[in-house]
Formats: sequence, C-alpha cells, structure tokens
Amino acid sequence: MAKILTGKEVAASINEESKKVIERLAREGIVPCIGIIRIGENESDISYEKGLLKRCEAMRLNVKKYMLPSDVSEERVIRTIEEANEDENVHGILIFRPLPKHIREDVVLAHLKPEKDVDCVTLASLAGVFTGRKIGFLPCTPEAVIRTLDHYGVDCKGKKAVVIGRSIVVGKPLAMLLLGKNATVTMCHTKTADLPKEAKEADILIAAAGKAGIVTGDFVKEGQIVIDVGINVNEDGKLCGDVDRESVEPAAEAITPVPGGIGSVTTAVLVSHVVSAASEQYGM
Amino acid sequence: MAKILTGKEVAASINEESKKVIERLAREGIVPCIGIIRIGENESDISYEKGLLKRCEAMRLNVKKYMLPSDVSEERVIRTIEEANEDENVHGILIFRPLPKHIREDVVLAHLKPEKDVDCVTLASLAGVFTGRKIGFLPCTPEAVIRTLDHYGVDCKGKKAVVIGRSIVVGKPLAMLLLGKNATVTMCHTKTADLPKEAKEADILIAAAGKAGIVTGDFVKEGQIVIDVGINVNEDGKLCGDVDRESVEPAAEAITPVPGGIGSVTTAVLVSHVVSAASEQYGM
Repeated sequence: MAKILTGKEVAASINEESKKVIERLAREGIVPCIGIIRIGENESDISYEKGLLKRCEAMRLNVKKYMLPSDVSEERVIRTIEEANEDENVHGILIFRPLPKHIREDVVLAHLKPEKDVDCVTLASLAGVFTGRKIGFLPCTPEAVIRTLDHYGVDCKGKKAVVIGRSIVVGKPLAMLLLGKNATVTMCHTKTADLPKEAKEADILIAAAGKAGIVTGDFVKEGQIVIDVGINVNEDGKLCGDVDRESVEPAAEAITPVPGGIGSVTTAVLVSHVVSAASEQYGM
Repeated sequence: MAKILTGKEVAASINEESKKVIERLAREGIVPCIGIIRIGENESDISYEKGLLKRCEAMRLNVKKYMLPSDVSEERVIRTIEEANEDENVHGILIFRPLPKHIREDVVLAHLKPEKDVDCVTLASLAGVFTGRKIGFLPCTPEAVIRTLDHYGVDCKGKKAVVIGRSIVVGKPLAMLLLGKNATVTMCHTKTADLPKEAKEADILIAAAGKAGIVTGDFVKEGQIVIDVGINVNEDGKLCGDVDRESVEPAAEAITPVPGGIGSVTTAVLVSHVVSAASEQYGM
C-alpha cells in the first residue's frame, strides 16, 4: 500500500521560515498583504481561496480581495490590477487563472508589477523558469511539488519524471524545474497516443491534467511516486484530484492526497512569496 | 537504409519566401543587414559563420561583423551590442553563444533591442517560446528543425519525440515547439540514466547534445526519424554531427546529414528573420 505524503508537514516547515520574516517585519510595523483578484465563481478557485484565507489568518497576513463578475470587461480587469499595483499596502498579487475566454490573458497580465508577481505570470518571471535563472518568484504550484519531493527525500537526479498536463500554470514550468533537478522529463497531454504506457515509465508521476480520476491503476508501476496536482470537484460536489486513489494506492510507493496534499503546500509557498515580496519592497 | 533528409530543399523554399520580401525592400532602396557578434575563434562558430556569409551574399544581404577577442571585457561586449542596436542600417543581430565563461550572458543579452533579436535571446522572446505565444522571433535552430519536419511531411501529433540536450539555445525551446505540435516530448541530458533506452522510444529523435557521434545504432529503432542538430569538429578537423551515421543509417527511417542538414536550414531561417526584422522596422 502506498505511503501517503501529506502536505501538512511540508507546509509547516515552509510556514516556520515565513514566520521568522513576518515577526521581523512586525517589529517595524509592517504586515504583509496579499491582493487576490478573482473573476467569477469557479468552484476550484473558491476552494483554493478558502484554504488561502484560512492560512493568511493563521499567519496574520492581511488580505485585500478584488472580486469581479465573470462578464467583466478587459479594461476593468486592467484597472483592478493597476489599483493593486499602486496600493503600497499590497505586497503581492494573485490572479486566478485561467481568465474568462473574452479576456486576453497576455494583455492583462502584462500590467502586473514584476515585484508584486508572486505567482510567476509576467514574461520575465516565466523566462526565468524557462532558462533556469533566478528572476522573480517561481510559480507556486510547481514550487510546491518540488518542495514536497525535497521534503520527503525524493532525489530527482537521473529519475524518470512524467508530467501529465502542459499548462503554463503547472505542467510546463514543473517540467523545467524537474529538469533543473536533473530528472529525465516526459511531457504528456490530451494528444499523447498511449498515456498509461508513458505514465508507467515514470519513477515520479505528476498528474496535472485537471481531470478528476484520469490517473488509474494501469498508469502506475511498483515503486512509483505519484504526485496529484489536480483540484477538481466531482459529481457529488466533493473535492478530488486527478488520481483515482483507490486503484492507484495498491501499486504506488507513495502518493499525495487531495485534499491535504500539494494544494496546502501551494498555499504555504504563496504566503512565503508574499512575505518575501513585502520584505524586499521595504528593503529588509 | 535511411532516407537522407537534406537541408538544401527546405532552405530553398524558405529562401524563396525571403526573396520576395528582399525584392520589395530593394524597390524602396533598403538592403537588410545582419550584425554578427562573435567572441573568440570557436571552430563550430566559424564554420556556421562561413555558411551564413555565403548565404547572405547569395541573398544580397549586407553583413556587419563585430569580432571580439576571447578575453574581451563584459563592458566592451555590452558597448558592441549597443553600437549595433543604434546602427539604423543593422536590422538583426546574431550573437554567438555560449559566451566565454567570464561574461555574464544574462547581463549582456539584456542589452539587445527586442526588435533586432533575430535569434530569440531576450527574456520576452524566450517567454514567448515557453508560453507558446507569438512574441518576437523563434530561435533559429529549433525553428529549422520544425521547418524540416514540416517540409518532409512528418506529422508530430501524438508522436513520441525525444530531445537529447537541454540547452536554452536548442534543447529546451525545441521541446516547447514540439509540444506545440502536439508531440509527447521527453527531454534527456547528461544525467539521464539510460540514454539509449529513452532514445529508442522515440518516433522522432533529436540529437542536440553537441557531442560528436554520441547517438549510435543502439539508440535507434525501425521507422525512426533522426534529426542531427550537432555541429562538431572531429579529430581530423572534419565537420560532423552528434549522430554516428554509419551505425544509425541501417535502422533509421530517415536522417538529416551533417553537413548539409539542419545547419543550412538554420541559416535560411536566420536570413528570413533578418529580412522580416528589416521589413517591420520600416513598417512595410
């Protein structure tokens, strides 16, 4: 039976680091603040936001919410970003993606101030991930995956990592980070001819397709580490990942659960970015 | 025996497109010009440059050469880039990489004007390749590979592509372009545990390691397309690729030669970028 790699203790160690900086800032009267821009009422966004708000409260971070209707104009989204840019009390900005189809993501995101880009959406930050240079912050979810692997002592060097999903939010940047850890990386997606066969080759399998239960027992081989990045809501309205845990658990070596896995680490990573951003903006 | 996919006819079709633009520009008295910045006397740089100069002459492009000694200071490299930036008669700038170790590549390349960045070295252009958006020009060698596959009717969709080499000049951007063509892509490198095994899984195998003869017969399976991106100089001072052609040819379906393969297409792609850059800079 697979070992369950919970996010809780990974998040706890990240939060410990953040707390030290938060205390140092508090002595100067500074409270780090995250600006959250959410458009519409996507269930997985709301679920993630709920966890984030709880975490911010526990860590005593301020939150400023910018809620926009799903039919909002591009112009108003840009104005909202600029408002958050100019607000000195907002140190990091999170924008839920994907944006609605009528909003041009590249046009809108270009307005974000690089120093407040805590989730790696600006071009310079993305180029940093691609080239492997340190420019801005890493994207939170891919960093959370790497932190989790590190925490549980999974050495990527020379291992075969297979990433299912090629989004610019998770799949592509995660592939680059795994490559940076010297894994041999395969990127799979909806057009992959034989997904179970590719997945079975993995020492480390990353499910980031955004499809409930897509990874089943026939994707898995003995000794495999399975990382579930999916945050989906199933027919019963319950939160679930991309991995069909029941069929995967008997074969895999270890698996991250949903909820309680990568999502909670992501929140801790995001908080740590906001804290760093605040610290850098005050030059401390 | 493998079919030989020569670069000649791919280059010819790209050059045909370029010629139309060159003629249009000539009627306005404009001759596209490439600025070439080369540091030191690297043999594969010189070999590539030779082909490029010949091509520019045949296409009636102007060339401005900026030759710097291998112990040049970072400051002087930056000054050279700025000089080429400011020269209105230079429309595209090629800088041979990798730069010598004492030069910080990121610092230096940040000075290049994006509109003259014909080989995708600036952060915005790189982010464009990573995200799959059209920003600036694609890197020449990866684009040459895609053009060659397209020309010979190789459909990447659902195929397994294995890229050996993870440089930011070839391996990483090529992986992104292949992903954009819906291939399942594996990125291999010096730390890959079993390189022949990974390579053998490929429908399309890309050798971009920069090591003469690293790809041998045991990397290849029947029906495989082998693309050789290597430009190396062997012990006898002869130009050769990453593929040991003698042992690979019996098994592979098709193979690109060195010389006369991807290198010649790369030159044609670069010329097409310079021509486009000139055309855009004059708003025509």
